Amino acid sequence: MRNVIGAVCINCGVQYEAGDTTYTCKQCGGVLDIQYDYGYIKSRLNRETLAARKDFSMWRYLELLPIEEGSRLTPLRIGGSPLYRAEKLGEHLGLKKLYIKDDGLNPTGSLKDRASAIAVVRAAHAGMHTVACSSTGNAASSLAGNAAAMGLESFIFVPERAPKGKVAQLMIFGAHVISVKGNYEDTFRLSAEAIEKWGWYNRNAAINPYLSEGKKTVSLEIAEQLGFKAPDYVAVSVGDGCTIAGVWKGFKDLYAIGLIDALPRLISVQAKGCCPINRAIETNRPLEPMEENTLADSIAVGVPRNGEKALRAIRESQGLTITVSDDEILTAMRLLGATSGVFGEPAGVTGTAGIKKAVEQHLIPAEAVVVSLVTGNGLKDTASAQCAAGEPLHIPPDLGILIAELDRT
Amino acid sequence: MRNVIGAVCINCGVQYEAGDTTYTCKQCGGVLDIQYDYGYIKSRLNRETLAARKDFSMWRYLELLPIEEGSRLTPLRIGGSPLYRAEKLGEHLGLKKLYIKDDGLNPTGSLKDRASAIAVVRAAHAGMHTVACSSTGNAASSLAGNAAAMGLESFIFVPERAPKGKVAQLMIFGAHVISVKGNYEDTFRLSAEAIEKWGWYNRNAAINPYLSEGKKTVSLEIAEQLGFKAPDYVAVSVGDGCTIAGVWKGFKDLYAIGLIDALPRLISVQAKGCCPINRAIETNRPLEPMEENTLADSIAVGVPRNGEKALRAIRESQGLTITVSDDEILTAMRLLGATSGVFGEPAGVTGTAGIKKAVEQHLIPAEAVVVSLVTGNGLKDTASAQCAAGEPLHIPPDLGILIAELDRT
Repeated sequence: MRNVIGAVCINCGVQYEAGDTTYTCKQCGGVLDIQYDYGYIKSRLNRETLAARKDFSMWRYLELLPIEEGSRLTPLRIGGSPLYRAEKLGEHLGLKKLYIKDDGLNPTGSLKDRASAIAVVRAAHAGMHTVACSSTGNAASSLAGNAAAMGLESFIFVPERAPKGKVAQLMIFGAHVISVKGNYEDTFRLSAEAIEKWGWYNRNAAINPYLSEGKKTVSLEIAEQLGFKAPDYVAVSVGDGCTIAGVWKGFKDLYAIGLIDALPRLISVQAKGCCPINRAIETNRPLEPMEENTLADSIAVGVPRNGEKALRAIRESQGLTITVSDDEILTAMRLLGATSGVFGEPAGVTGTAGIKKAVEQHLIPAEAVVVSLVTGNGLKDTASAQCAAGEPLHIPPDLGILIAELDRT
Repeated sequence: MRNVIGAVCINCGVQYEAGDTTYTCKQCGGVLDIQYDYGYIKSRLNRETLAARKDFSMWRYLELLPIEEGSRLTPLRIGGSPLYRAEKLGEHLGLKKLYIKDDGLNPTGSLKDRASAIAVVRAAHAGMHTVACSSTGNAASSLAGNAAAMGLESFIFVPERAPKGKVAQLMIFGAHVISVKGNYEDTFRLSAEAIEKWGWYNRNAAINPYLSEGKKTVSLEIAEQLGFKAPDYVAVSVGDGCTIAGVWKGFKDLYAIGLIDALPRLISVQAKGCCPINRAIETNRPLEPMEENTLADSIAVGVPRNGEKALRAIRESQGLTITVSDDEILTAMRLLGATSGVFGEPAGVTGTAGIKKAVEQHLIPAEAVVVSLVTGNGLKDTASAQCAAGEPLHIPPDLGILIAELDRT
């Protein structure tokens, strides 16, 4: 990889060369961060070369990705998700320049496809036949779907509370699914033991430093879609911390190669029932485990494995932390759907809920350019949608009865 | 609309001028077909003009669409869905050039977005504030989502058997939902009465001749994605008949303006429990109503309102009719997912099931270029996915138990 210099441990600063197959720091066990040769990349990835490219998937930004030369890329079209100007939602919230990035339109319905794409491409290039991960759901289905498309086997470990729809999706993708009687932490531990025993390719975002690099492509797209400008704020729902760290990395990369001339402030939005990262920022104390009490299952992570990366991203960006209740999440689901026609899952709309609250608390000025990143499709968890939406009007096929019912309401 | 000449009744041949707001034939009640000025369109829509366009949504083909000049287009990104070369699935089925068009990646998860887009754009241009339809689900959610995005109210009539996930989706979009205790026919009738009473914009595909025009954009994309070539066969799941009629219209349009030089043969795939259109073709008799006995709810239409248009499309294309069981549909769901990473709902994969059967019956040669149109996202109906996929392995978080379980299987 001519574009990659190597990796650095974010805890102890030890450097590793590119191509070293280590996942975490051999000295302290810390999470690694991939380092790029921006001078080299700059000469190849710029406004002119981008304007000539017809690939609008995440591979559009190949020079900024840790992919070995000659790798077979994913068959599925990942990334290139729409950025909508959300005028009506903006009016409702009091923001003049609000945008929605709908990453629920990825092939398996979530932003996680961007990370899994990197995993399967790297696994296939390394000659491995089996990939594995533990996940609350979206990483799982994205890995299963992308593995199927690449012709790899997948083993997926999910906590038993994962919504049945998500589990069915990955079973359809032909994955070997292990439903673990325990929480995310138990699930993660068992997957790590199994991966070590059988030598599978490890797609756990906690361990694998390349995944966050895939996720960062969402920021590359946002900036290009805004005409090579960073927004003032980007609101991201936060669970494990890998996504917000990736979002930050993307903007920093673009800044480093001169494609944007300012960086956004991140808004880290967590659920009240599980907000260890926001709590650590707000109290300025180390991360402490929390219970996982929220219906936003995709961000119910009590022990965030990428917590340190997330804390750094929030602090470096002079970010905000906003914590929202499950009711506020369901309200945001309805609000986003009814004003914009975008249907997000609970964790997918948590960012939107956070923006609403931040505006109410006068933390974001009305003139700011704000992006709400919708990370997952509402169809992933229609049980929550039913909680949010209520029941339709049930009537027999009779116009008189309909007229009476509509008069009544 | 400079590009539209008018409309013609497909039953009695009476002509109507463009701009006439009639839905169906005033003389015989027949379904209308929109007619274009291909000479005019040809000068504006060709390989050169298309190569210069950066819009990859369905509006890319505006000259071939019945949209008034100056209309406000849909904010949501509709169309531009990926066409995947399905090598592994092709190998499995014995086809060398098989493609999957994944229209489940549209904003509300189905091909119906293409039709609803036309409806809301035309309704808004006409100054109407409320749109309405009856639907088994996908037309409903696509209308609700697109109405929300355009700032219109929507009234949606669904039969009570519509999956709860689909209903929740459209409730989230802020639609007024009427769940009708009856079948699709009852639901349709009540919606027609209500639309007449309140004067809403009518998005029933049975009545509104413009919707099929939106659906045809899927064919325009397929041909362009194949380098301005029509495939030899396109397999389409068939319920009401509007989609297959639209698919055919798209290819005929491209042929008329010289962008393709051959037409495909259609494969009309219906479920055994509800196949009035295939039965009419196979027996060469008029359409007769059927029961609606299939888990593929999106194509469970016992009295197809666009049946005549569908019959003409199938016959004109020298098409095939293939009828598949619900078990064959569930098998196709697993097969498509495990070989390609594409998750389709039952009606979405019915085309794939039909291709499998057609190859087994030696109706399609191995060398043919075949496209399987996946019309809806599997997340729309995860209950069926669970039927197809079965249960995961449930175990406590213990490596020893996992080893024993994997040894056992």
